[in-house]
Amino acid sequence: MSSPAVAYARQNQPRFLDELKALLRIPSISTLPEHKGDCRHAAEVLAADLSRIGMQNVRLIETGGHPLVYADWLHATGKPTVLVYGHYDVQPPDPLDEWLSPPFEPTERDGNIYARGAVDDKGQVCVQMKALESLLAANGSLPLNVRVILEGEEEVGGEGIAAFVASKAPELKADFALVSDTELFAPGLPTLCVGLRGMIYTELEVRGARTDLHSGMYGGAAPNPFIALAQILARLKDEEGHILIPGFYDDIIPPSPEELAAWRSLPFDEEHYRITEVGSRQLVGEGGFSVLERTWARPTVDVHGIPGGFTGAGAKTVIPAKAVAKVSMRLVPGMTPAKSFALYKSYVERIAPAGVDIEVRLIHSGDPCLIPVDNPYIQAATLALHEVWGKETVFIRSGGSIPIVGDFARHLGLPSVMMGFGLPDDNLHAPNEKFHLKNFELGIESVIRFLEEVGR
Amino acid sequence: MSSPAVAYARQNQPRFLDELKALLRIPSISTLPEHKGDCRHAAEVLAADLSRIGMQNVRLIETGGHPLVYADWLHATGKPTVLVYGHYDVQPPDPLDEWLSPPFEPTERDGNIYARGAVDDKGQVCVQMKALESLLAANGSLPLNVRVILEGEEEVGGEGIAAFVASKAPELKADFALVSDTELFAPGLPTLCVGLRGMIYTELEVRGARTDLHSGMYGGAAPNPFIALAQILARLKDEEGHILIPGFYDDIIPPSPEELAAWRSLPFDEEHYRITEVGSRQLVGEGGFSVLERTWARPTVDVHGIPGGFTGAGAKTVIPAKAVAKVSMRLVPGMTPAKSFALYKSYVERIAPAGVDIEVRLIHSGDPCLIPVDNPYIQAATLALHEVWGKETVFIRSGGSIPIVGDFARHLGLPSVMMGFGLPDDNLHAPNEKFHLKNFELGIESVIRFLEEVGR
Repeated sequence: MSSPAVAYARQNQPRFLDELKALLRIPSISTLPEHKGDCRHAAEVLAADLSRIGMQNVRLIETGGHPLVYADWLHATGKPTVLVYGHYDVQPPDPLDEWLSPPFEPTERDGNIYARGAVDDKGQVCVQMKALESLLAANGSLPLNVRVILEGEEEVGGEGIAAFVASKAPELKADFALVSDTELFAPGLPTLCVGLRGMIYTELEVRGARTDLHSGMYGGAAPNPFIALAQILARLKDEEGHILIPGFYDDIIPPSPEELAAWRSLPFDEEHYRITEVGSRQLVGEGGFSVLERTWARPTVDVHGIPGGFTGAGAKTVIPAKAVAKVSMRLVPGMTPAKSFALYKSYVERIAPAGVDIEVRLIHSGDPCLIPVDNPYIQAATLALHEVWGKETVFIRSGGSIPIVGDFARHLGLPSVMMGFGLPDDNLHAPNEKFHLKNFELGIESVIRFLEEVGR
Repeated sequence: MSSPAVAYARQNQPRFLDELKALLRIPSISTLPEHKGDCRHAAEVLAADLSRIGMQNVRLIETGGHPLVYADWLHATGKPTVLVYGHYDVQPPDPLDEWLSPPFEPTERDGNIYARGAVDDKGQVCVQMKALESLLAANGSLPLNVRVILEGEEEVGGEGIAAFVASKAPELKADFALVSDTELFAPGLPTLCVGLRGMIYTELEVRGARTDLHSGMYGGAAPNPFIALAQILARLKDEEGHILIPGFYDDIIPPSPEELAAWRSLPFDEEHYRITEVGSRQLVGEGGFSVLERTWARPTVDVHGIPGGFTGAGAKTVIPAKAVAKVSMRLVPGMTPAKSFALYKSYVERIAPAGVDIEVRLIHSGDPCLIPVDNPYIQAATLALHEVWGKETVFIRSGGSIPIVGDFARHLGLPSVMMGFGLPDDNLHAPNEKFHLKNFELGIESVIRFLEEVGR
């Protein structure tokens, strides 16, 4: 099917890329207070762009944290309304010394653009924005009603948009959501994501002595909170990778035999994945489950860092008064953050070694979710993707968490179409994050054709 | 016995204190490269002071790191020669927010002076310097031959002075050493330290994936180096505090029954110590040994910090590529750093969990040592202390490590007199480090009278 919007997108691709680069230069790191102004600046740039392309009612919506960006175009009478969602905030770039080019100076190499946020999620937000621009510029109108809502706190728990969604704000009234924050299962393979893990992110603080002590004077008598913490963390999983928190697995709803069969037919080789993506001596995790099951349909425990104590160069002979572990758990359908956190907290309190006090804090959480695949939006997406990519769409899950998808379902009754264009080796949250330029182009065409199909 | 030098010291006490404060204002933190200039500045200030009071051949001796300060006065024909040792470097002051007054702005409160280095070791170096000044000013000469050697790397392993001592440099030719870097067993109780623990300070690095990975995408398949590290650290000690490294205890020479009996008669209450010094819920350590045995005569394992990963505020969902634990072990007589490190390394390599690579690095080490108490210098010290403090001297050990004492014995054949004036609650290596002003005064008088006794 010939589409003037697709033709417009192809003609304007170099400018689109320049505009993506401008957005990538803004270090909108939501977790670091010193980048608060950059987050607002990114929101303002996106709002200005939405106005320029012809979206209406463009504005920033203030939250307790970084602002939301809102826009709409509601003149397609009788057509469905899509809620287009993305996020403009990014992860911190550390460790900086492992980047081959500076994280906030987007650089093209080997058909990719490298920068923090290239794929997660500024590149994919740009895919959405450029699709809307192409449709408006080529046709003077959109094929369906569109609301855009962009947030700046996805990487830190999304409190602001969660509250906004929970309030059932009229700005969010729609028939379905388009969420572009996921990836293709393999290069060139059109993919829709239909399941996400949830998560709880916690801090586990262990306190020993009242103040830091000299390890010579007091070693052998004063409790060492790092050793106590290690003793606790070592008891979260057994040597086969099974989580030892009592009851943690009880409520899991396993994938259906059909879904498991479909996963087995995906082009996936565990050894190739180990070598090319993970690069570790061997893979780990629960025995008896494939890698796709372990990363899509099984819960996890991970430790992200252990602040406190002496971390400088050289030697300081101190028994620190306290240690903190940043611990998160991925949750799968059937599990809830509240129950999972309660089980974790009570287990950790029970196994804490003698001599120390512990405190367990919940930093943020998100529900796991499963998307039904029998709705017209998923079907339109499948059709559009087939046309642009020339292949059948595969349905996968993601091990990551996009809490907003659960919120859209629970509070607004919206099904989400998770159509994303990242690749498995795009270094999400890591040094040398990238976005494949071809996927940027075909992503824009896919979204154009998807919206056209839904509006037909 | 009336001493003009003691009278001089009493008259000049206010100026002595001002000069100590000036030295404490110099942030000579040896472990932090950005304070290299401050370390040299502290050395220069001390050298200038040694010249001013009449010491000779004053100079800085360059090492691979921070310089040594040397001075001598060798005109007491026929008298013994003392090698006076101290260190001008200090520990980092973090955590800064727990200091009640700034660490490098010495502040008097409640009869103490608070500052980083107040007791460890600038205050005690000043005790030595002011004793020499008082003797020279009151008598125009010293009662014995004196060499002074001050180092600036005690807190980072003392490589420079260790090499200088190992070279048997002629500047170190002496009959005994006076080391003032220890404490009184209790307020007002004159104390000589006759045993020190040794140590090895190590880094244990654990590497999993090639690069940092997103914990959503890869959680359940990629090894988590922090969890692997916790599993290793948790297996260094059992729940009763026994070190699990095979062979680690094999070579220990236990204290004699007489020494153990003397320790039992010391004024020491474990519960009072727990509450006032440690402030933890309970004390820990090997069952079957008293606190004094555990801290003076038993080896330890402590973890000082776990750099790597995400340690900022908020949440970053990363599986870090690597984690590092700073781990040290205190050693007791009979043990050697080389064998202890080899046993530790081989054990850790054996218990490392699947999926990760590990590397064990030795950062620095020091031998444990025991001082014979039947020499004339210890006897002169006992006499001088009795006169100044009015009580019998107690002989204790220290759980800390002063590697130079072992080096003096091994390379130069020098017995050390460890005469120090700190107190157990002086917050060595911790926030709010202090030195009791009365101990500063009586310390100076003690050293004056000790040197006079040796020279008699």
